[in-house]
Amino acid sequence: MKKNIAVVVYSRANFGRCKSLLHELKNSKDFKLTLISGASALTDRFGSSAAFIEKEGFKIDEKITCLIDSSEPEAQAITAGVSTIQLAGVLKKIKPDAVVLVADRYETLSISIAASYQNIPVIHLQGGEISGNIDDKVRNANTALADYHFVATKQSKDRVINMGISKNKVFNSGCPALDLLKSFKKDISLDVLNQSGVGDELDFNKPYFLISQHPLTTDISNSEKHMSEIIKSANKFSDYQKILIWPNSDAGNSGISKAIRKFREQDLNLDGWRFLLAIPPDEYAELLRQASCLIGNSSSFIRESSFLGVPSVVVGDRQKGREIGSNVILAKPSTNSLSKAIKKQIIRSGYKSNKLYGDGNASKKIINQLRKINFG
Amino acid sequence: MKKNIAVVVYSRANFGRCKSLLHELKNSKDFKLTLISGASALTDRFGSSAAFIEKEGFKIDEKITCLIDSSEPEAQAITAGVSTIQLAGVLKKIKPDAVVLVADRYETLSISIAASYQNIPVIHLQGGEISGNIDDKVRNANTALADYHFVATKQSKDRVINMGISKNKVFNSGCPALDLLKSFKKDISLDVLNQSGVGDELDFNKPYFLISQHPLTTDISNSEKHMSEIIKSANKFSDYQKILIWPNSDAGNSGISKAIRKFREQDLNLDGWRFLLAIPPDEYAELLRQASCLIGNSSSFIRESSFLGVPSVVVGDRQKGREIGSNVILAKPSTNSLSKAIKKQIIRSGYKSNKLYGDGNASKKIINQLRKINFG
Amino acid sequence: MKKNIAVVVYSRANFGRCKSLLHELKNSKDFKLTLISGASALTDRFGSSAAFIEKEGFKIDEKITCLIDSSEPEAQAITAGVSTIQLAGVLKKIKPDAVVLVADRYETLSISIAASYQNIPVIHLQGGEISGNIDDKVRNANTALADYHFVATKQSKDRVINMGISKNKVFNSGCPALDLLKSFKKDISLDVLNQSGVGDELDFNKPYFLISQHPLTTDISNSEKHMSEIIKSANKFSDYQKILIWPNSDAGNSGISKAIRKFREQDLNLDGWRFLLAIPPDEYAELLRQASCLIGNSSSFIRESSFLGVPSVVVGDRQKGREIGSNVILAKPSTNSLSKAIKKQIIRSGYKSNKLYGDGNASKKIINQLRKINFG
Amino acid sequence: MKKNIAVVVYSRANFGRCKSLLHELKNSKDFKLTLISGASALTDRFGSSAAFIEKEGFKIDEKITCLIDSSEPEAQAITAGVSTIQLAGVLKKIKPDAVVLVADRYETLSISIAASYQNIPVIHLQGGEISGNIDDKVRNANTALADYHFVATKQSKDRVINMGISKNKVFNSGCPALDLLKSFKKDISLDVLNQSGVGDELDFNKPYFLISQHPLTTDISNSEKHMSEIIKSANKFSDYQKILIWPNSDAGNSGISKAIRKFREQDLNLDGWRFLLAIPPDEYAELLRQASCLIGNSSSFIRESSFLGVPSVVVGDRQKGREIGSNVILAKPSTNSLSKAIKKQIIRSGYKSNKLYGDGNASKKIINQLRKINFG
Repeated sequence: MKKNIAVVVYSRANFGRCKSLLHELKNSKDFKLTLISGASALTDRFGSSAAFIEKEGFKIDEKITCLIDSSEPEAQAITAGVSTIQLAGVLKKIKPDAVVLVADRYETLSISIAASYQNIPVIHLQGGEISGNIDDKVRNANTALADYHFVATKQSKDRVINMGISKNKVFNSGCPALDLLKSFKKDISLDVLNQSGVGDELDFNKPYFLISQHPLTTDISNSEKHMSEIIKSANKFSDYQKILIWPNSDAGNSGISKAIRKFREQDLNLDGWRFLLAIPPDEYAELLRQASCLIGNSSSFIRESSFLGVPSVVVGDRQKGREIGSNVILAKPSTNSLSKAIKKQIIRSGYKSNKLYGDGNASKKIINQLRKINFG
Repeated sequence: MKKNIAVVVYSRANFGRCKSLLHELKNSKDFKLTLISGASALTDRFGSSAAFIEKEGFKIDEKITCLIDSSEPEAQAITAGVSTIQLAGVLKKIKPDAVVLVADRYETLSISIAASYQNIPVIHLQGGEISGNIDDKVRNANTALADYHFVATKQSKDRVINMGISKNKVFNSGCPALDLLKSFKKDISLDVLNQSGVGDELDFNKPYFLISQHPLTTDISNSEKHMSEIIKSANKFSDYQKILIWPNSDAGNSGISKAIRKFREQDLNLDGWRFLLAIPPDEYAELLRQASCLIGNSSSFIRESSFLGVPSVVVGDRQKGREIGSNVILAKPSTNSLSKAIKKQIIRSGYKSNKLYGDGNASKKIINQLRKINFG
Repeated sequence: MKKNIAVVVYSRANFGRCKSLLHELKNSKDFKLTLISGASALTDRFGSSAAFIEKEGFKIDEKITCLIDSSEPEAQAITAGVSTIQLAGVLKKIKPDAVVLVADRYETLSISIAASYQNIPVIHLQGGEISGNIDDKVRNANTALADYHFVATKQSKDRVINMGISKNKVFNSGCPALDLLKSFKKDISLDVLNQSGVGDELDFNKPYFLISQHPLTTDISNSEKHMSEIIKSANKFSDYQKILIWPNSDAGNSGISKAIRKFREQDLNLDGWRFLLAIPPDEYAELLRQASCLIGNSSSFIRESSFLGVPSVVVGDRQKGREIGSNVILAKPSTNSLSKAIKKQIIRSGYKSNKLYGDGNASKKIINQLRKINFG
Repeated sequence: MKKNIAVVVYSRANFGRCKSLLHELKNSKDFKLTLISGASALTDRFGSSAAFIEKEGFKIDEKITCLIDSSEPEAQAITAGVSTIQLAGVLKKIKPDAVVLVADRYETLSISIAASYQNIPVIHLQGGEISGNIDDKVRNANTALADYHFVATKQSKDRVINMGISKNKVFNSGCPALDLLKSFKKDISLDVLNQSGVGDELDFNKPYFLISQHPLTTDISNSEKHMSEIIKSANKFSDYQKILIWPNSDAGNSGISKAIRKFREQDLNLDGWRFLLAIPPDEYAELLRQASCLIGNSSSFIRESSFLGVPSVVVGDRQKGREIGSNVILAKPSTNSLSKAIKKQIIRSGYKSNKLYGDGNASKKIINQLRKINFG
């Protein structure tokens, strides 16, 4: 009988992180994929990943409407509560053999609660890493509640085992996000990005910076200031076009959005800037690959970038402690520190790809392992 | 300025575990105690601990009504969700300097979420231990979300540190429940227990067994059977009176209750049995101290019992992996295994007290440490 | 194409009220029945109607676990909130052509919200009546949110129309609960009731009182006292056996339960008393039919009793304002008033059946109407 | 002792509707005002009314974070559920003598549930009116749950009484929103509006249209189209500046926003347009007063406009059935119908003020009545 694996996609980042795995599950005769989406993945404001998911040919079996519309920190807890209430009933009804959840966003803890409290095995991807933000705590709490662990680095594996998890339930598969980066896809044109978002039309044959900055939930009051510094710094480099992605749904995002809006409304020099809400995973992979420099605190600027060998300037404490490749320069959220770091990166010629976060075969490794597990 | 410490008491077990700390906080000029109660602690069916709390002279500042009335496992998740939603708002309003939560019951994860997602420091008592049940996962998830850790054993301290927590935030205070056991209180008479519950009037100068069995949330279907075996085994020892405490609100409790009800309705030999819903902490301490044998899977039959040196038969997997003293015999939930173990214990003369879970000064140690912490 | 009609059964009373309709829908080739159960209907403590429903051959398609375990009034609101959150998602997924809900219990408002806010047509049974309790408000709020109205009396029809509802959406079908009473079912033996509950074994060939008292949510503090008065009064009539049904989940039920428990634990004269948690609809119909006198405030003591012509003593304000037949005597919740009323009723010979609440063909009328409605 | 009156403000519209009452309560020695805000009133996206409230000198005592971020209809139900859960606890804690709620938005039903289920008297403003949208049902459900009713028109009073409410609990006070319109406030300059929102700087001494269109929750799929028709129609009148207010949080709002965004991004002729998120009550009153024509389906285009005698074109079915003054022309949401109606209105010279919705003394009348009520 097919194993029914429920995968929960709750944000635009989630989808990129497990897209290759979703395809493997969908295409395998050994598994039935149950796809659950919810939270910010359903929300227009955060670039409705659900639309991307369906365009990619997946059917979303269950939708969990739970994202609280607020930039205040208590909203993160309330969102998790509302998700838990709904997901508990949905999982009870579906009775999957196991539930897959990805990484460390605040909503994901509701998934591991709803499943583990009902003795449904939890499969956690990307445990054992270190970062700043509430993410760091959430990631470890997910590890504590999960039963099987597919991690992305050797150090992560050791950390998960140190947390008391049995060795034979921890597998270093690498990060499935890298599966998308493995081969250059010729048929992907970035020109489509000129059709969404607002701002100047860009020429993707010319150099550009990719900017993506999320709030630091543990230091919300500085969100706006940090984003302003990034914009100012990037704007000094007039030879480069700039693509800026709006922040995710973390508490404090209104500060970031405010900085962007102020810049757009007040600044005269918006030449070469384009502002995007969300980007489908394959286009995002290309955008990363071809960027002259990545600037911000998206975890992809560490994980995917190291595999691609793309110069990256990682800002502030959101990714504090994460393992980084030589392509990453850490910078403080000040114009001075940022400008120096960006200058260094654009002078420096290409970095070599490294396999710190995997070799691009994660989903295959995961699915092979899932075949062997007896979920009982 | 006084530090405002919010302590959350969500079950009858919680109250005993932190009663001595509540007194310390209330009586100290350095702290303001904000007492939050909720979940099964407010519920008549589970022996309303709120009444005990108020009788003890505490004011409950906030009540969180969230316990779902169901013995099904999804109800545990839904209860946690409802608690998270309410507690998030309550903590936002109170803005305490820190929130204290105890141990590992499924509801407690809502406390650590509601606080940590708002960057309110979380103080966790009794992390780092090992047990069966969903408790084991919840305890570690609480550790992951908490900021300060007061553990009860040396091994627990090592485990918490291994989980990635900074050494200087982990303190081995011992378990505050033992503070209540430190000195024999002459003024406590167990005769009051004849005024609550149902069953025979007991003579507390004569020997008795204390029986307390909770469901194993990971093996709900056997709850009834295991309880029946315990009752049958205990009933063979006609020289001993039996005090049985109804189970807590964990999923599967209806199986346990059913076994008790069937016994009460069908069995002719109910001589010497008394059935109690809940017992105030001090009376419970005395009841443990004077018991001839403890039978069941209450964690107090390991923790408190080791300090007291009282013979204890711990049944099944709920406490699997927990550190035990020499006074504990582990038994399978079968009449055969249980009868043997009970027989051994009543033959054996008194065990020596051991300090495995602390020396009875936990609250003093905790409060001294809290004085030093700058919650920022 | 079949019309998909979702019927929501949230309490033991609900099931009796719509059982005949459920059968009609299930057996009709024009309809697909989607059966949703939840709240106290799923809860052992309130006599799990879900078990009765399944024994009757129905499949419960969706279960909504939402009943808060508390006798405090705020719990009624929280239960409704938890139900709304879950039911919104479930109805979105099912997309029924219409949702049927019954009467006036506090949980039912969550059904009409979850459906009407999504533009799913709401079919309300038993609107337009008058009673006390929070029920009176809830019933009218349900009418306000509903689209089609099947009422039980002529006066009710007028009242619904007066509330601004278009005449052609209000149908006087009578109450479907009476459908079960229409013909005496020979194959139903009440002896099975000796196998559930606790108390004396009864002889159903001998006369008995049926007692069912629920709290008055608007006067919770007197719940216990009123129940005591009823028990005392009934106990004076030693020639009659007494069947008492535990109260429903309304706020204040713990007062009623307390009165019953005190009576059971303290009173010596328990001869001839039997205490039941819940009774399947057909057995309940027989129990009503053969009773010497009904005592309490169950609405069935007015509705069903008038059809059956059974003597009934309706106590207090819970049913205040409801249309009554000549078989009903209203009494105050005092021993004096109650004893007089009971005495009158047992002297009085049988009342004639009256059709105040319908002629026993309600479900047929409802389903015929549903066939004609274009839910669009 | 002062009567503690809790007023719940859940949207920007709510605040304007009860601002004058809030001042009366705050300034009276007979009352203690407890101000509760929540839902879209707290949300930046909908123009955070909370900021206006605090700027006006009020303290918000409790904040209820509950708005689900979604334009789908089920989100309206889930928002109501989350609000109910939180508000139940907050009202239990506050124990106000009564709770005031305004009108008919979908969230407001959670207020009447949370209060009435706890027997806290509910005071409802603006019952008995007729409109389209889910509002019509919600308004009547609020009436059903409320205890005291302050209505705005004679017809409304009759309708509330017809719904079964006792005459002596229904008072025709008129609408408190009109209190703000009573006297022309010289010190209010509309120029501040050029400092918020985006678009052209306007000259408020020159003529302008005020446009405010909300979704029709019962016909969500046409939201975008209807808004487009309005924009196109208004844009034909190049002699008039246009002020457009973004839609409220009703399901379907994303369609409206999309139409506006498309217009802004694609249209060349944006001359004279300004787009605003929210406007404080006094500025809004002035903006209404001085407008050449109001276009859309805001209820203020009927209520306030009739008092002011401002020409108004009310579009579509959202306000269907509401009593209107002679200053209102109803139009279909098509360019043709709209253009005709607008042309008529700008030709027509000023209308006379009429008192259909009150005489501008509502708050005084309400507070005088509240003094007399014994909330018991």
